[in-house]
Amino acid sequence: MQQTVGTDAEIDFGRMTPREFRELARAGGYRRMTTRNVCLGHVQCAMVALPERLAFDFMIFCQRNQRPCPVLEVIEAGSHTSRRIAAGADLRTDLPLFSVFRDGKLVGHVPDAREHWRSDLVTFLIGSNTSCDQALNRAGVQTEKHRYVLRTGIQTDAAGPFRGPLVVTMRWLTPKEAVIATQLTGRFPFNHGAPIHIGDPAAIGADLAHPMTGNDPVPPMPDGLVPVFWACSMTPQAIAQAAGVEFMITSGPSLGLISDLRSDQVCMP
Amino acid sequence: MQQTVGTDAEIDFGRMTPREFRELARAGGYRRMTTRNVCLGHVQCAMVALPERLAFDFMIFCQRNQRPCPVLEVIEAGSHTSRRIAAGADLRTDLPLFSVFRDGKLVGHVPDAREHWRSDLVTFLIGSNTSCDQALNRAGVQTEKHRYVLRTGIQTDAAGPFRGPLVVTMRWLTPKEAVIATQLTGRFPFNHGAPIHIGDPAAIGADLAHPMTGNDPVPPMPDGLVPVFWACSMTPQAIAQAAGVEFMITSGPSLGLISDLRSDQVCMP
Repeated sequence: MQQTVGTDAEIDFGRMTPREFRELARAGGYRRMTTRNVCLGHVQCAMVALPERLAFDFMIFCQRNQRPCPVLEVIEAGSHTSRRIAAGADLRTDLPLFSVFRDGKLVGHVPDAREHWRSDLVTFLIGSNTSCDQALNRAGVQTEKHRYVLRTGIQTDAAGPFRGPLVVTMRWLTPKEAVIATQLTGRFPFNHGAPIHIGDPAAIGADLAHPMTGNDPVPPMPDGLVPVFWACSMTPQAIAQAAGVEFMITSGPSLGLISDLRSDQVCMP
Repeated sequence: MQQTVGTDAEIDFGRMTPREFRELARAGGYRRMTTRNVCLGHVQCAMVALPERLAFDFMIFCQRNQRPCPVLEVIEAGSHTSRRIAAGADLRTDLPLFSVFRDGKLVGHVPDAREHWRSDLVTFLIGSNTSCDQALNRAGVQTEKHRYVLRTGIQTDAAGPFRGPLVVTMRWLTPKEAVIATQLTGRFPFNHGAPIHIGDPAAIGADLAHPMTGNDPVPPMPDGLVPVFWACSMTPQAIAQAAGVEFMITSGPSLGLISDLRSDQVCMP
């Protein structure tokens, strides 16, 4: 796993521009375990790059499951450069870490995906709800604590080989925060939008025993809080992995692409 | 062209259910020239069915141009039935009229597309801003008068062979209506969302001399009104036609598919 090392503790990653951050990532200079709080106010994306043969089915899957899979850019096979939302970003190098999968199995994490990249890969950039953190903070909703990524019993709507359960982000909020966060995230339809559920985790079959991040079960919820659930951009990656895709490169866990899009832009430009 | 005939003047099309209307259309019983004001409060869609070979490029085009091309459902080749947004609708019969194109040329309008349908067609259902009419009316914004479909000088973002100008709906509204309509349509991101422009038509190169509906140039605007422009779902059809697609079936002009989706649902279900 990665650790904070060297002098990067002194850098205010929150105030960097997306371009500066992508250059830092390209140079291997970002070693934290998450891109949360990086380039605050900019849309962050999960990346899924898979063979062209499967790309149309995957895109239909994303259309059928827009809440977890809001596609913000598609980069055709033969290119590895973002043009629309992270202009000029090299998608093989400008993220802090990549996951490489063969036949649905994780074969490794690499900080530079150039030697693994294939010319038949189509790349999808998919909005993440990390993008809304600053807007939530400004509105008085805390985003640091009580955040879990969970599998649910809700089935996505399949396309081709892509099928499986919805993954959600569960946050424990005060009732007042829950009301604010519901309204506010509804303004971000291209970053998962409003919650998909509020209240009892069992009602959506949320797997509290096996969170997808960390190793421990979810602890008991403190009194006075309410669980609120948003569709999560780990869904498309989990679905592609479950489909046993022959070869795939994705953004590393909790480490996204920082786009040039400002989160406060409600719609796509 | 079609005329109102028989007894359909007595039917309250606005209060029909989408299923009832689709059955009526299947039976050839709807002969008006537009589906505006049909099944009020339900999302209407433009339909574009084109060969699978081109479908991925077309879908990427729609993703890159989400404002004019909000894809609400994709039906894979081999099927001609909506599953998600107009459950059970036969897309060869359940619209009032179809346009058939060969090599980008319109070859005819047919009320039943079964004899033209091909098993390699992938069908896209694309949200239309007609869907918002009832919500606008409820908010006191008139939707009957002063409505024009125009080509603009704004270029869409190309994908494969698909490229060309954005088509817009221009409405002339009072300033008060313009403020209400801007806020209200922003709540419908999957039906073109907020305006793309307010004010001078020349600023977006709107072609007032050759509206896409009707034969006459746009008349002078009455004093005291303001032009407001929304991306229009005629864009994808015009783009596909301009690409000279070898074969294509679309919804007839101003005649859409009536979906089961309620317009007041801000997000996809």
